[in-house]
Amino acid sequence: MDKKTLQVVPLGGLGEIGKNMTAVRQESGIILVDAGMAFPDEETPGIDLILPDFTYLREHQDELKGIVLTHGHEDHVGALPYLLREFNVPVYGTKLTLGLVRSKLQEFGIKRGDLREIKAGDTQNLGGFGLEFVHVNHSIPDAVAVAIRTNAGLIVFSGDYKIDLTPIDGRPTDLGHLAALGAEGVLAFFGDSTNAERPGYVPSEKTVEATFEKIFEKATGRIIVASFASHIHRISQVVEAAKKHDRLVGVAGRSMVRNVGIARELGYLDLPSSMIVEQRDMGRVPDRDIAILMTGSQGEPLAALSRIAAGTHRSIEVGPGDTVVIAAHPIPGNERGVARTINNLMQRGADVHYSPLEAVHVSGHGAQEEQKLVLALLKPKFLVPVHGEFRMLRHHASTAEAMGIPKENVFILENGGRMEFKDGKARRIDNVAAGMFLVDAGAIADTSEAIMRERQQLSGDGMFVVVARISAQDGKLLGPPDVISRGFVDPQASNGLVDESIATVTRTLERTARKRVTDRDELKKEIRKDLSGFLSQKTRKRPIVLPLVVEV
Amino acid sequence: MDKKTLQVVPLGGLGEIGKNMTAVRQESGIILVDAGMAFPDEETPGIDLILPDFTYLREHQDELKGIVLTHGHEDHVGALPYLLREFNVPVYGTKLTLGLVRSKLQEFGIKRGDLREIKAGDTQNLGGFGLEFVHVNHSIPDAVAVAIRTNAGLIVFSGDYKIDLTPIDGRPTDLGHLAALGAEGVLAFFGDSTNAERPGYVPSEKTVEATFEKIFEKATGRIIVASFASHIHRISQVVEAAKKHDRLVGVAGRSMVRNVGIARELGYLDLPSSMIVEQRDMGRVPDRDIAILMTGSQGEPLAALSRIAAGTHRSIEVGPGDTVVIAAHPIPGNERGVARTINNLMQRGADVHYSPLEAVHVSGHGAQEEQKLVLALLKPKFLVPVHGEFRMLRHHASTAEAMGIPKENVFILENGGRMEFKDGKARRIDNVAAGMFLVDAGAIADTSEAIMRERQQLSGDGMFVVVARISAQDGKLLGPPDVISRGFVDPQASNGLVDESIATVTRTLERTARKRVTDRDELKKEIRKDLSGFLSQKTRKRPIVLPLVVEV
Repeated sequence: MDKKTLQVVPLGGLGEIGKNMTAVRQESGIILVDAGMAFPDEETPGIDLILPDFTYLREHQDELKGIVLTHGHEDHVGALPYLLREFNVPVYGTKLTLGLVRSKLQEFGIKRGDLREIKAGDTQNLGGFGLEFVHVNHSIPDAVAVAIRTNAGLIVFSGDYKIDLTPIDGRPTDLGHLAALGAEGVLAFFGDSTNAERPGYVPSEKTVEATFEKIFEKATGRIIVASFASHIHRISQVVEAAKKHDRLVGVAGRSMVRNVGIARELGYLDLPSSMIVEQRDMGRVPDRDIAILMTGSQGEPLAALSRIAAGTHRSIEVGPGDTVVIAAHPIPGNERGVARTINNLMQRGADVHYSPLEAVHVSGHGAQEEQKLVLALLKPKFLVPVHGEFRMLRHHASTAEAMGIPKENVFILENGGRMEFKDGKARRIDNVAAGMFLVDAGAIADTSEAIMRERQQLSGDGMFVVVARISAQDGKLLGPPDVISRGFVDPQASNGLVDESIATVTRTLERTARKRVTDRDELKKEIRKDLSGFLSQKTRKRPIVLPLVVEV
Repeated sequence: MDKKTLQVVPLGGLGEIGKNMTAVRQESGIILVDAGMAFPDEETPGIDLILPDFTYLREHQDELKGIVLTHGHEDHVGALPYLLREFNVPVYGTKLTLGLVRSKLQEFGIKRGDLREIKAGDTQNLGGFGLEFVHVNHSIPDAVAVAIRTNAGLIVFSGDYKIDLTPIDGRPTDLGHLAALGAEGVLAFFGDSTNAERPGYVPSEKTVEATFEKIFEKATGRIIVASFASHIHRISQVVEAAKKHDRLVGVAGRSMVRNVGIARELGYLDLPSSMIVEQRDMGRVPDRDIAILMTGSQGEPLAALSRIAAGTHRSIEVGPGDTVVIAAHPIPGNERGVARTINNLMQRGADVHYSPLEAVHVSGHGAQEEQKLVLALLKPKFLVPVHGEFRMLRHHASTAEAMGIPKENVFILENGGRMEFKDGKARRIDNVAAGMFLVDAGAIADTSEAIMRERQQLSGDGMFVVVARISAQDGKLLGPPDVISRGFVDPQASNGLVDESIATVTRTLERTARKRVTDRDELKKEIRKDLSGFLSQKTRKRPIVLPLVVEV
């Protein structure tokens, strides 16, 4: 790789929402921008979480100089503990980002972890790259975009951003800084595409403040607000409303308690301990005098609000007179869980406020006009839309093309698609290994795909086990085989199923005995073939058939 | 039950979307309003479809006089074949409704089926009840509300409705008829609540026409439109646009082909055969000259559009120059499937139009202002909100209360909640059996709950089978046990798991042998206990553990 060449390899976050991670490589080394995780869906049943496939980093570990984090959300930092187990490199991030990372590493029992704090506006050399951090608004404080001076030119990663001119902390996205980078000349921009399908601007967080004020004004009983535990701005809006309306603040839910603690400690949340009610004391505070912050805005079955809605929370009960605010939008895939929570809470008589019926939430990702504004300021030569499903990347590209960026200067990549920049030119060179590392049972699972397929088959059609005792001498069947099923149809309910299955297996083994087949794998293969055929013809289901042949 | 008493028993459709079915009972007999099904979700893995629990009807079969259908959607007629297998009663519905039902019964091989056609405006006596049918707009033609004159007074079932003053077929909801019923005096109204959370009015189908016109005007290549196969109005909009723009019409997808056939035959769709292109000929028609109607608007994996998007359709391929319109909203739970379809189509270079980015679909259920209008016309004494999750029923109730219907005259029920009407009074009396009948492997499954739990456990944690050969005499273990797993973690990958499992089982059987335990169920219980404990401690997963003890 020659001195003037730059390579950029997105390892996650393209063609998907989540697990954002990009490798930036030149002769002097590799730096990683973000290290996110994604959550499992119906195609990854039983999985704890999903990491980007980082085979590429394993193959180039001696080149890896460090990791740069844009903000503290799981889809940007969640993979960090797994990376730091394999690569001992410094991690750069803002104060809040590192605060969240530190507690995450503790959970994972990772003592070491060379965390280096930076501030928006700072410059930092790392592995021959010149880093510069730009303050941006997002649904978590202390988020930054990252400008990187490379041997091939200046490139910019937006991180997650929106442009809120009246943000909670009074610090709008640093437009001037973006303009200065644009004046210097941006070779390539890697821009957040999450809301690229959405026209106009995302409303300011201030609009949520107004909704909270209305709700707090009206509420005569207890107020419960569920939000993302990382949404410190939203949380501080609740705290401020509580102050104004003379309510104490309760905090429930493991991650909410943790994040509120971190935010207070680091000065991102002005919540005096005199205002805080411990969970065990919440019952003793008059309903009119408390507002409770909690997790569960996504209907996660184990989160505080979901358990309260289901009536299974050990200390908090909801009923008539209580006001509940779900201050978040359901993430795609969570719609039903959120609906279940809302239905349960209403059935208990609570007054429930939720989006989109009320403005209790605004997105943390800029819409089309904000994306245009950033493109106008940075004036990048090349655009690589990142963070989003293909349709979002495609819309982001169209927006850029509408602003005069030539089609051939916009690159829609998939994970692993490697770009090369040199002499002001850009091209796709190849695809490196990319995809998913599944974390199952607490560890990175190796043979994941086969097991995912098994789980999907089991979940729909179940399992059918047959145990046959055969003679070690002649392979003859000794007595009728046993059949046991789980998750299949009820063999008793479906008439003759058990008997016919036994008959099928018996016929198979008579045939194999005649043919003098004694090899057990061969016998199992024959049993599986005949029995699967019988079962699917009889029930139209295809359970996993597990034949067990015991020689006696 | 005395002569002046009326009972109403909702057996489905309350606290949920789908499987709408309500029994209306008086001394003279029972009639059933609608007989719908629901689709399975993550809590009913592997299930074909869900029916209302109709134990109540089985218990009162000799009282059942007939079934009345409001329109031809699956959530109103899907349970019919299963009911007609058990109850030989007449079925009343409009021409299109019965046309769809007839083909459904044929699929199920049900020859008999006493289908009796009615028209909006007709009156009909059935089992001592006086039925009257009112034309309403919905996303399928020929939909009706049903007014029923009973011994206790006049009650009205809205069916699914909206008020479209500029509908495709020029026949708005019959407001005059509703007003006349209101003038006569309505005791109770059972009103559709699906869009009760939505303020304002649902836009007219006409708005979609305008969007189609724009899209057809602009398209230079092939046009593909995916919609609900039952949305005959939407389909005829596509046909009319095709006529206007000199395009032939192709039809793909089993249910689309069937419904287009029925609609043409019955005169609901003006599509001359000269305009129709058979699937085998579609390839031969120039792209500019064809518009193809198909299924797949919900991202159903096997539907035409999904297979085209995935590149697995046998005759149709999509690429640059093609225009695809997804003329439907994703039903909750289908969001990801629809997103996958859109992403795949865009990746193939198609120009994809979808909601909410463009007005390619409007809901078939009236919003709050339409619900108010109907309440104002009917002036019911009692309201029972139906068709919807609790939150929708609750919002419908609030709308009615805001219009002056006293709180105590609004009844939010759950499935099985039986109401009694007598002397102008209404009260809840009790709950009859209600819930789900799961159809699995083509038949109504009996022991469904246990099997659902097994499938859910299998899908997350898989299955772990251990085979132990023991001596018939002393119950001693003969050789090391075998362990096999499916859908669990990879035993090889997780070090020592297999050996430690075998050791665990060996210890268990040594212990039981010492205790002279020979009862096989007892042995299995002990093995399961010890092994489950070991596995969950080792992997944090709880697979179904299946111990098999073979006596030798």
